[in-house]
Amino acid sequence: MRQSQLFTKTRREAPSDETSKNAQLLIRGGYVHKEMAGVYSYLPLGRRVLEKIERIVREEMDAIGGQEIRMATLHPSEPWKQTGAWENVDVVFKIMSRTEKEYTVGQSEEEIVTPIAQEYALSYKDLPLAVYQIGQKYRDELRAKSGVMRGREFTMKDMYSFHETQEDFDRFYAVAKEAYLKVYERCGLTAKATEASGGSFTKKLSYEFMVLTDAGEDDILYCDKCPYCANVEITKEKEGDACTRCTKSGKLTRAKASEVGNIFDLGTKYSHDFNYTFRDAEGNQQYPIMGCFGIGVTRLMGVAVEAFADEKGIVWPESVAPFAYHLISLAPDDGPVRAFGDELHETLAKRGVEILYDDRKGVSAGEKFADSDLLGIPHRIVISKKTVADGNVEIKERTGAEMRIIAKTDFLSSLG
Amino acid sequence: MRQSQLFTKTRREAPSDETSKNAQLLIRGGYVHKEMAGVYSYLPLGRRVLEKIERIVREEMDAIGGQEIRMATLHPSEPWKQTGAWENVDVVFKIMSRTEKEYTVGQSEEEIVTPIAQEYALSYKDLPLAVYQIGQKYRDELRAKSGVMRGREFTMKDMYSFHETQEDFDRFYAVAKEAYLKVYERCGLTAKATEASGGSFTKKLSYEFMVLTDAGEDDILYCDKCPYCANVEITKEKEGDACTRCTKSGKLTRAKASEVGNIFDLGTKYSHDFNYTFRDAEGNQQYPIMGCFGIGVTRLMGVAVEAFADEKGIVWPESVAPFAYHLISLAPDDGPVRAFGDELHETLAKRGVEILYDDRKGVSAGEKFADSDLLGIPHRIVISKKTVADGNVEIKERTGAEMRIIAKTDFLSSLG
Repeated sequence: MRQSQLFTKTRREAPSDETSKNAQLLIRGGYVHKEMAGVYSYLPLGRRVLEKIERIVREEMDAIGGQEIRMATLHPSEPWKQTGAWENVDVVFKIMSRTEKEYTVGQSEEEIVTPIAQEYALSYKDLPLAVYQIGQKYRDELRAKSGVMRGREFTMKDMYSFHETQEDFDRFYAVAKEAYLKVYERCGLTAKATEASGGSFTKKLSYEFMVLTDAGEDDILYCDKCPYCANVEITKEKEGDACTRCTKSGKLTRAKASEVGNIFDLGTKYSHDFNYTFRDAEGNQQYPIMGCFGIGVTRLMGVAVEAFADEKGIVWPESVAPFAYHLISLAPDDGPVRAFGDELHETLAKRGVEILYDDRKGVSAGEKFADSDLLGIPHRIVISKKTVADGNVEIKERTGAEMRIIAKTDFLSSLG
Repeated sequence: MRQSQLFTKTRREAPSDETSKNAQLLIRGGYVHKEMAGVYSYLPLGRRVLEKIERIVREEMDAIGGQEIRMATLHPSEPWKQTGAWENVDVVFKIMSRTEKEYTVGQSEEEIVTPIAQEYALSYKDLPLAVYQIGQKYRDELRAKSGVMRGREFTMKDMYSFHETQEDFDRFYAVAKEAYLKVYERCGLTAKATEASGGSFTKKLSYEFMVLTDAGEDDILYCDKCPYCANVEITKEKEGDACTRCTKSGKLTRAKASEVGNIFDLGTKYSHDFNYTFRDAEGNQQYPIMGCFGIGVTRLMGVAVEAFADEKGIVWPESVAPFAYHLISLAPDDGPVRAFGDELHETLAKRGVEILYDDRKGVSAGEKFADSDLLGIPHRIVISKKTVADGNVEIKERTGAEMRIIAKTDFLSSLG
C-alpha cells in the first residue's frame, strides 16, 4: 500500500488526556481514533493488526473443533434476568426502547449461547460442543484508563463449551489451554497460564493467561523452573519461596502482568438457569457442564504494544504487524528513484509480501525514519539516489542498529 | 465439513410468530437463531453466507479506493446532539450509563466518521477520501417483522466519502453506483438503481438499489428498455406510461421490490455540523461535500432467500451459498460407501471445493433429500451402495430435475 494514499497520518504528541502508553502510541501512529474514554475506532493500520490477531485466534479455535458463529449483540433483558446478571453484574448496560422494552448490549454471551445450545444439543450424542465468535463486547465501566487494554467497547473471542461429564470438561479445558498458549506464542507473546479465582459464581479455580509487562494491572508469582504461575490474589506464597509444584527446586518470582485471556469452568450454573438438560446414554436428563473461554483481541493488541515498544515507538511482532516491510523512498521526486520504488513495491506486493511504501513527497528523511520507528513495521527497506544508482537497497530491522546494503536482486532472491 | 459434526439441525416447522419467508426458512435450516423480533444470531451456515457476501462487498469497495476501518459502535451522545439526530431520529437508542453519561449504539456513523476525517483530511491534497466498514448497526424500530431484512440489529457496509467539489462527488457517485451494481450481480441478484427521495435533510435525489421480489416493501416503476427506475413515491408516472428517459420507446412496469442498498448525497450538512473545513488550493477554508453509501449485508442475505426460494426451501446463488457442494451418503453405515464418501469428501476439501458431507447415520434418504432441499446448496452429489459398487456418483442441481450418473473419476476431472 502506498503511504501517500493512506488517509491517516502520524502525530508527534498524544492527546494530553491519554495516560496509557498503548493508546498514546496507537493514536500517534494513526492506528486508532479515540471516541471517548475506553472506546476507540480502528483505522486502516489498526484494523490490519486486529485481523492478524483474529486470524490466528480463529485458526487455533477451529483446530480444537470450535464452530464459529455470530451471536446478536443487542439482547433482550429476559435471559439476563433469568441468570440474575441483570441485577448482579454492574457492568451490564441497560437500554430502554421506545416501546419500553429493556435491552442490553452483550458484555458476555452465556445468556444467548445457552438457549442456542439448548435448541440443538439435546442428546449426549450432540456433546461435547464448542461454539465461538469474534465480536464486540460492552461494559459499563466506571473508569476506563488503560487505553485499548480495558474498554467500554472491545473486541473479544468468546468460546463456550458444553459437556456430558466433568471428566470431559477437564479434557477439553486442557486442550483449550494448549490452544491458548499457541495463540499467544504465534502473536509473539509469552503468556503464562495462571491459576486464579473462579469469579463470583464458583469456588473452582480458573486460568488467566498473563503476559509479563510493566504495564500489567495484575501481580503474579511464577516459578523459574516449571510452568507454575499464580495470581497473588489467590496464594499466600511470596517472592523467593520454593515452588511447591516443582520437581526442579524452582523459586518464585513476582512480576507485573497483563491478562490476555481466561478460561472458566462454569459448572451447571447456566444450564440450571435455563433448565437446559440433555438425554444421557441411559435415557436420563442431565444438566450439561459449561466452560467459557475468552481472548481479548483489542486487549492483545494493546498488550503487544506495551510489551515491545521502545522509546522510538511501537515494535510489532512480525505475525501481527500491519505490514511486514516498510519501503522508504528518500527521493520520491527523482525519476529513477520513483521508478525503482514503484517497481519494487509492485514486485513485492505481487509476491504477496505485505508492504507499506512511503512514497510521500516533501517529507524529510528524518521525518520518514521517525514515522517508521513510530509505526513499528518489522523490516525496513530504504532507497535513495545512491542506492538506486548502484542497484542496491538498504535493509534494517526495526529493533536492530545495523543497516545492510545489498543488491536488489539478492534481496529479492533472499525472500525465496 | 461433516454434517454429523455441524451442531445445528434442520426443523420441519418455523416458529409460529415468524411471518416472513426469509426468517422461516433460515430458522428451519439452522442458519439463524431468533433472539427477539428483529434480532438474530447467525449460526455456522448463516455465518458462512454472511462472509461470502462481505467478501464480495469488500472487494468491490477496495476496488474503488475505499479504505476499510472499524468504527466504534458505542458512541458518546455529544456528536449526536451536535447533528440534531439525538432529538430528530426516532430509531436512535438512548443509553444511560452508571455514571450518568448518555451513549448510543450506532444506527449510522456520520457522527463518528466526520470527526475522524476532520483529524486527518485537512487539505485538498487529502481529498477525495472514502472510508468504509462492515459491522453492526442498531435501530430502535417500533415493529420488526421482515425477518433478517429489517432488524433492530443488522450487519451493514457503510462507506462515507469526502470531496472538494460537487463535480468530484458526482464523479465518485457514478463510480460507486457501478460498484454497487457489480456487488449485486456477483451475489446473483439483479438490482436496479432507483431514483428516490433524498431523505429528511436534502431535496436532492438519492439512489436506492432495488431487487425485484414479491416480498418487497417498496413499489417501483421500471422501464423495460432502459435502466430508468423510480420509487413510486417520487413520481406521478404509472404502469403502462411511456418512459421519458428512453430512446427506445420503453414502457413502464410496476413491481414490488426490496431495497438492498442506498447512496446519499449528504452535501455539507455534517461538515457544517462539526465545523469541518479543508484548505483548498488557493488557501481558503471550504466545507467538504460528503456522501454515504450503504449495503445491508444481513438484508442482502434475506433478499436472496426471498428472491430464489421455492416450495422445498432455500435456493442460494452459488456465490453466496454456504457450500458449493452437498455430498449425500445414503448408506453411511456401509463400509465401502463410508470409505468412498470419506475419501471423496477429503479429496474435494483438499482441492479447495467447499463441501458439506452428509455422513449422518440413521437418517433416511427422504429426510436427507428434504434437508438438502431446505439448505439450498447449489450442487448435490449422491452416493449409495449401487453408485459406489459401480464407481459412480449421482449429480443433481438444486434447481434441476435431472439426475446424472457419472464415474467419480470423470466428475473429479470435470472440476478441473
